[in-house]
Amino acid sequence: MTMRIAILGAGPSGLAQLRAFESARRAGAEVPEIVCYEKQSDLGGMWNYTWRTGLDAYGEPVHGSMYRYLWSNGPKEALEFADYSFEEHFGRPIASYPPRAVLRDYIMGRIEKSGVRDQIRFNMAVQWVDYSEQTGRFTVNVRDLKKDELVSEEFDRVIVATGHFSTPNAPFFEGLECFPGRVLHAHDFRDACEFTGKDILLVGSSYSAEDIGTQCYKYGAKSVTFSYRSTPMGHDWPAAFDEKPLLLRVDGNTAHFADGTSKEVDAIVLCTGYQHHFPFLPDELSLRTRNRLYPGDIYKGVFWIDNPKLMYLGMQDQYYTFNMFDAQAWYARDVILGRIALPDASTMRADSEAWVAREEASQSAEQDIDFQTDYVRDLLDVTDYPAFDVEAVADLFKQWKHDKKDDILGYRNCSYRSVLTGTLAPPHHTPWMEAMDDSLEAFLADSLLEEAPVRRIA
Amino acid sequence: MTMRIAILGAGPSGLAQLRAFESARRAGAEVPEIVCYEKQSDLGGMWNYTWRTGLDAYGEPVHGSMYRYLWSNGPKEALEFADYSFEEHFGRPIASYPPRAVLRDYIMGRIEKSGVRDQIRFNMAVQWVDYSEQTGRFTVNVRDLKKDELVSEEFDRVIVATGHFSTPNAPFFEGLECFPGRVLHAHDFRDACEFTGKDILLVGSSYSAEDIGTQCYKYGAKSVTFSYRSTPMGHDWPAAFDEKPLLLRVDGNTAHFADGTSKEVDAIVLCTGYQHHFPFLPDELSLRTRNRLYPGDIYKGVFWIDNPKLMYLGMQDQYYTFNMFDAQAWYARDVILGRIALPDASTMRADSEAWVAREEASQSAEQDIDFQTDYVRDLLDVTDYPAFDVEAVADLFKQWKHDKKDDILGYRNCSYRSVLTGTLAPPHHTPWMEAMDDSLEAFLADSLLEEAPVRRIA
Repeated sequence: MTMRIAILGAGPSGLAQLRAFESARRAGAEVPEIVCYEKQSDLGGMWNYTWRTGLDAYGEPVHGSMYRYLWSNGPKEALEFADYSFEEHFGRPIASYPPRAVLRDYIMGRIEKSGVRDQIRFNMAVQWVDYSEQTGRFTVNVRDLKKDELVSEEFDRVIVATGHFSTPNAPFFEGLECFPGRVLHAHDFRDACEFTGKDILLVGSSYSAEDIGTQCYKYGAKSVTFSYRSTPMGHDWPAAFDEKPLLLRVDGNTAHFADGTSKEVDAIVLCTGYQHHFPFLPDELSLRTRNRLYPGDIYKGVFWIDNPKLMYLGMQDQYYTFNMFDAQAWYARDVILGRIALPDASTMRADSEAWVAREEASQSAEQDIDFQTDYVRDLLDVTDYPAFDVEAVADLFKQWKHDKKDDILGYRNCSYRSVLTGTLAPPHHTPWMEAMDDSLEAFLADSLLEEAPVRRIA
Repeated sequence: MTMRIAILGAGPSGLAQLRAFESARRAGAEVPEIVCYEKQSDLGGMWNYTWRTGLDAYGEPVHGSMYRYLWSNGPKEALEFADYSFEEHFGRPIASYPPRAVLRDYIMGRIEKSGVRDQIRFNMAVQWVDYSEQTGRFTVNVRDLKKDELVSEEFDRVIVATGHFSTPNAPFFEGLECFPGRVLHAHDFRDACEFTGKDILLVGSSYSAEDIGTQCYKYGAKSVTFSYRSTPMGHDWPAAFDEKPLLLRVDGNTAHFADGTSKEVDAIVLCTGYQHHFPFLPDELSLRTRNRLYPGDIYKGVFWIDNPKLMYLGMQDQYYTFNMFDAQAWYARDVILGRIALPDASTMRADSEAWVAREEASQSAEQDIDFQTDYVRDLLDVTDYPAFDVEAVADLFKQWKHDKKDDILGYRNCSYRSVLTGTLAPPHHTPWMEAMDDSLEAFLADSLLEEAPVRRIA
């Protein structure tokens, strides 16, 4: 009987897994039968923009947290697939910080080229996964959203690639229930134009707060106030920005902060992170972790130690993204194909705990970058994923951190060198603060389109 | 072995069921063991206001669709519990159209008085219900949200009281994905102040559109445009209102309608209804229906004909609400207690189909009201639910329809007579359009509180 594998989710992680097996198949290996279940109607996961918030057309929680006018907040050179460069996809070098649609196009391109789309079943939402000790197999129960029908199939392995930036972590602050304006989590943020002319408060000091705040400013917000729990971002903000310590309570439109100051605001965006959430898994198979570089209970950051037939991809806090998912997927593939043997559970646990301990000892962003670099390197060294200079990518991340610190509104104008092709990215035709059109066409044009036609997301 | 009953949901329907059994117990009957599972942290269902939208603190879909400043859109005399009058609860007559907090207080009051709170398990979200032909029992799998733990128990009967105004039906209109402003479903509407000074478009012509539109106007929206599919509401709207036929597409901020006209708008609210959604039920137990007065496949509007151990409460389109849920709950109770025998499946199906056919023959709102009146009467006649003059309630509904038609912004100033106490409701101290404070305290005060203190929802 052919081994059957279920991949849950067709975002960057799930697609990496499809690509990993396809690469082995092309090299002559016999590969298992693979079914990839995807809740959305197309591949790309988070990179599919949706205007919907909350629940989708079928009553399922909306996966997407991306918003209009979103540009990459890290250089594309740091996430390049080692087997498919940006230059190969676009036929020429492009600038380092592309908008969402451009990155989506790149992700899609590799997949269309490798011809794995027919392994994906779209509009299928995984409801429940069971593991039977008797048969040693998983039953995966999936709702066919279009037919409104529950179907169930058996698998020998399950790979969870459902992401961890879809279920909001939204703490309550006193007075939110009486705030006379919009209160939303970053997950539901879609269009900055809604906040033009408004005073907005962003609770949080990580990527969501930083990016939504700067974007609202770019699109005309009157003022942007951040509230941090422990440390301000500390950028050299323009006058319209302010950083305040923790929000204590809201009284009408007035937000009160821990330092005794207050501010009148029109809208509140909770940029308070996401939860790892696997409502389709039984408790004994569920990864429970905060967002960290090395979640516990999984070996090599992938294999559920108590039952390594279950794998998780991309559940880490991420400097590395697409290329790390690839590294994980190639490793998972080789374990499944029997090319790599897993040690016994206690050895796996000791290994995992050592990584966790090292993460906890880390004292700076630079050390965090080195940590994740070593993790990726550790996976890459034993598979045939195309070699690339991971340490050079680590340097890119450090340079990026530096560039961002220097100029929070201008770092996206910087250029970096691809570690694959050696090409230094050309500058974009328009500084980020002036590039209002985030379409693929506008980005790839030779110059700023004077009057960009209204475009629709494909 | 004592029979065990699971009630799913502690909103008005689930509470009616608890109350029905409690009433029998007090009268000396031996009643089954009852467990009511409630996802929220308190009872009241939809009547609990939440500032949250989309997903709740535990990643579960938010149940609540109510918004701040919501006042009943029907007279309280038409939904009065026959066993607990408004006058009994508040100790005196009150006006006919109370705000949300007042109705919630009334619902809670009956429950606290009957002492059934300890039968409710809060913060428990039902994940999956299975029925076993072998044992003839249900397994109910529930997530204990606070412990993040899945628990499962067996029951002889399951009563679904989860409501049908929580899962948005949100159709796509071309251009929504590029609309430069907020697009939301009515389910996510919370605070009209967000739209002060804005031009808003409401897609739909039923209660949500009518009420959210008038409320936004009350709180300062610049203009309110409704888009209807088949029939305009046709009220005598003030100049700031407009009714347009179906929305065809959106182009930037411009909404285009089926009559060739267009309008620039700042926000779009999809008031396009809700889906009956039971993701926790297997296909063969799932009620599939649009919102209608008599959904098929359930006998007496309650019993799942293919397996009447499963019951549904409140799944109808509603003129009658609280008192209809009571009528259903008392009937369901009496079937469970063996006081009423159910006929065989084909008889039940024939009866149900006859009601469905009669609904389909109805040609006016008046006939719809008479239809639901007859349905409620049919249930009431065979239980010991306190007798009340259902036909007089039907007259109230017709009067209400008339009053609303006369004055869409003023009908909430009308008074009606309780069919239980005979008391004519006193007028409210402030016309609805001027009553900005929707708190219980402000409503119950003798006059408009000059400067109402900021209040928090309990």
